[in-house]
Amino acid sequence: MQLIDGGVCAAKGFRAGGIHCGIRKNKEKKDLAMYVCETRCAAAAMHTQNLVKGAPNTVTAEHLQDGYAQAMICNSGIANTCAADGIEKAKAMCELAGEALGVDPQDVVVASTGVIGPSIDLGPIQNGMASLVADLSVDGNTRAAQAIMTTDTHEKQAAVEFELDGKICRLGGMAKGSGMIMPNMATMLCFLTTDAAISPQMLQAALRETVCDTFNMVSVDGDTSTNDMVSLLASGLAGNRQITCQDQDYAVFKDALFTVLRVLSKAIAKDGEGATKLIECNVQGAYDRESARKIAKSVINSSLLKAAVFGADANWGRVLCAIGYAGAQVDVRRVDVAFASAAGSVDVCKNGAGIPVDEAFATRVLSEDEIQINIRLGDGDAAATAWGCDLTYDYVKINGDYRS
Amino acid sequence: MQLIDGGVCAAKGFRAGGIHCGIRKNKEKKDLAMYVCETRCAAAAMHTQNLVKGAPNTVTAEHLQDGYAQAMICNSGIANTCAADGIEKAKAMCELAGEALGVDPQDVVVASTGVIGPSIDLGPIQNGMASLVADLSVDGNTRAAQAIMTTDTHEKQAAVEFELDGKICRLGGMAKGSGMIMPNMATMLCFLTTDAAISPQMLQAALRETVCDTFNMVSVDGDTSTNDMVSLLASGLAGNRQITCQDQDYAVFKDALFTVLRVLSKAIAKDGEGATKLIECNVQGAYDRESARKIAKSVINSSLLKAAVFGADANWGRVLCAIGYAGAQVDVRRVDVAFASAAGSVDVCKNGAGIPVDEAFATRVLSEDEIQINIRLGDGDAAATAWGCDLTYDYVKINGDYRS
Repeated sequence: MQLIDGGVCAAKGFRAGGIHCGIRKNKEKKDLAMYVCETRCAAAAMHTQNLVKGAPNTVTAEHLQDGYAQAMICNSGIANTCAADGIEKAKAMCELAGEALGVDPQDVVVASTGVIGPSIDLGPIQNGMASLVADLSVDGNTRAAQAIMTTDTHEKQAAVEFELDGKICRLGGMAKGSGMIMPNMATMLCFLTTDAAISPQMLQAALRETVCDTFNMVSVDGDTSTNDMVSLLASGLAGNRQITCQDQDYAVFKDALFTVLRVLSKAIAKDGEGATKLIECNVQGAYDRESARKIAKSVINSSLLKAAVFGADANWGRVLCAIGYAGAQVDVRRVDVAFASAAGSVDVCKNGAGIPVDEAFATRVLSEDEIQINIRLGDGDAAATAWGCDLTYDYVKINGDYRS
Repeated sequence: MQLIDGGVCAAKGFRAGGIHCGIRKNKEKKDLAMYVCETRCAAAAMHTQNLVKGAPNTVTAEHLQDGYAQAMICNSGIANTCAADGIEKAKAMCELAGEALGVDPQDVVVASTGVIGPSIDLGPIQNGMASLVADLSVDGNTRAAQAIMTTDTHEKQAAVEFELDGKICRLGGMAKGSGMIMPNMATMLCFLTTDAAISPQMLQAALRETVCDTFNMVSVDGDTSTNDMVSLLASGLAGNRQITCQDQDYAVFKDALFTVLRVLSKAIAKDGEGATKLIECNVQGAYDRESARKIAKSVINSSLLKAAVFGADANWGRVLCAIGYAGAQVDVRRVDVAFASAAGSVDVCKNGAGIPVDEAFATRVLSEDEIQINIRLGDGDAAATAWGCDLTYDYVKINGDYRS
C-alpha cells in the first residue's frame, strides 16, 4: 500500500467539482462541492453525537439506510442547523443535485458547514447547479476540497493505492474542519471514495472501527460540532471479489482506510483555528484502551497545555494535571513523560515526579511545528494516540468575530 | 443577613497576615499567607477530584480527619505537587507554623498554589516565619488574600453578618483562582472562617452542599487543578447554641455560606486569566438538576462561545451546540435562549431555532462586562447557574509563558 496524490477522484468512477455559487459573500471562496460516481455505490456514514444535529445529517442518515448512494452535495457558509426549515431545505438540495445529475435524490449524500442558525437560501444553489455539474471532472477533487472549507487555511486530501484479490484499488478523500472540532463518532466533514468492492455492512463496520482511532482522536477546541459527518462511497469498479466478511481482504481495506484517515486527522489538527503547531499525544502502558484514549484526549484538550506548547514552555505539570482529571484508570505515581520533535526528545517526568531538565534544549524541542507528547504509564499494555494543536492569539481572533 | 466588608478576619477570634518570604522571585508579590484562631475550631474541607493531588491536600485531609483545626498556612509560587518530597515538605510547613504559633501541627491546614513539579524550598518559609507571625492582626485579611494570589489581578474576599439563636455571627473568606479552574468538589483555593458554633459534621455537610452550587459551577478553562481546596474553620466564639443537626439554624448558616461563596465564585470567574467579561449562564426548565448543571457548565466551557462573547458576537448557535453535547437529558427542539446584561435582554432563539434579531442591539447587550445567557428548556422545572468568562488574547499570553 502506498500514499498517492489525489482525493475523492483517486478511485475509479468518480468525478468532482466545486464552485462559488453565492451562499458566501466572498466571491473568492468556493461554497458548493459535489461528486458523483458513474455507478451506484455501497455507502456508509457516521454522524455527530451532538443532540443538536444538522438537518443534512438527518437527511443523509435516511438516504443511506438502504446502504447505497451515488452522489454528494455540500455547501459551506451556512450549517443548515437549528433552522425551522432545515430538513425541507436539505431534501431540496438532494433533489436539485439528483435532477441535475440524473441520480435518484435518495442516493445523494448532503452536508453543510458554516454558521448555525440561519435558514439556507436555495436560490444560489439552484442557480449554480448547471455550472457545478459542468465543473465535474476526474481531476476536480481539489476544487471540491476547497469548496467545503470554512476557516480552514488550505484543502485537505489524501489517497492510497492497495491491492485486493490481485486488483489495484484506490481509496481517497477530502476533509474540512478547523474549529468546533472534538469529533465524537465523526469529524467535521470528511468525504471518502473507493473503487474497492465491499458490501455496505462491511463498509460501515470498517468506517466505524477506523474513525474511532482517527477522527475521534482529534480535538481542536473540545467543541463537538452539530454537523460532523464522515461518509464513504465504494463503487466496486476495481473489480476485486466483493468483501462480505471480516477476512484478510477486509483487513487490507481497513488498513488503507486507516492510512487515509490518519493523514486527514493530522491535517485537521494541524490546521486547527489559529494553530501554529500540531500536537500528537502518544499514550502507552495504559490499563485499558478506554483509559489510553481518555488520557490522550484529555492532554490534547487542555487549554493550559495548548497555550504552553504555543509558548514552547516545557510545562509538564499541565500534562500530569490533565492525566489526573481524564477520568481514566491510572496510577499517577507511575507516569513518565517526554516531549519530542524533529529537534530531539527530552524526558521531563519519571514516576509522576519532575526530573532535572535542560530547559534550553526543551525549548528547542518545543519550537518545532510538530510536537509529540509521549506518556508511558505503568498500568498495562494498552495504547492510544490523539492529535490536537496549540492555542494561540489567532484562535481567539478567528472566533471572536466569525460571523462578520 | 447582610454582606459586610472583610474576609477571613470578619469572624471573632481570627488574626491573619501575608508577607513576601522569597518563594517567588518578584519581591512585590507576597507569597506566604497565614491565619490563626485564638481557639481550636471545628473544621471542614473539600479537595480536588484530580487523581494528581497536591501534597498539601493530602496532608490537610489527614489533619482534618478529627474535625478540628486552628491555623492555616499557604504559599504561592510553587504548587508542591508531583514533587517526590511533597508530603514531607507539606508536613514541615505545618510544623514550622505550629511551632511559631504554639499550635499543634496536626491542627494546621496547609495549601500551596503555583507551578506543578518543582520541589518547594523550605528555607524562605523558615526564615520568614517570625515576620509572618509578627504580621498577624485582626485586620490582616487583605494581606493574606494577596499572598495567595498567582495570576489573579486582585484579591478576592467576602463576608456576611447574620443572626443565630439571637447572637450576631459572621462568616467570611478569601479565594484565589484565575487559570486551571474547573473545580470539581472544590475551587482553586478558598479559606473561610466563621465564629458560629457548629459541629464538624454539620460544617462539612454545609460546605459540601454549598460548594456544589457555587465553586463547582465556575469554569475558566475546563482544567481541574491538582490543588483545589476549600476549607472552613468555625470558632464558635459568637456564642450561639451549637448547630448539631439540619434545623432552622443550619439553614440560616448555609444561606450565609452560600452568599459568601457565590460572591467569591463570581469574583473568580470574572478574574479568569485574561478575562474581560463575566459570563453567567442560567438554565431553567431542565429535566433534572443534573441536566441543568451539565448544560450550564457546558455552555460556560465552550471555547467558541467564550471567544464569541469576547467579540460581542451574538452567535447563539454555539450555545445550542454546547447544549447538544452537554451529555444532558434535553429536548433540543424546546430550547429558548436570550442574552442579557445591564444594557437589556435580547431573545435569539425560540424552540431550538433562530428568530429575527436586532444585531446592533445584541452587540450592545454583549458589550457590557457582565453577560447573562438565559436558557429556558421545556423539560421540567430544575434550574442551575454557572459562571465563566470570555476567552481572550491575554489568556493565551498568560499561559503561553506562565513559568518565566
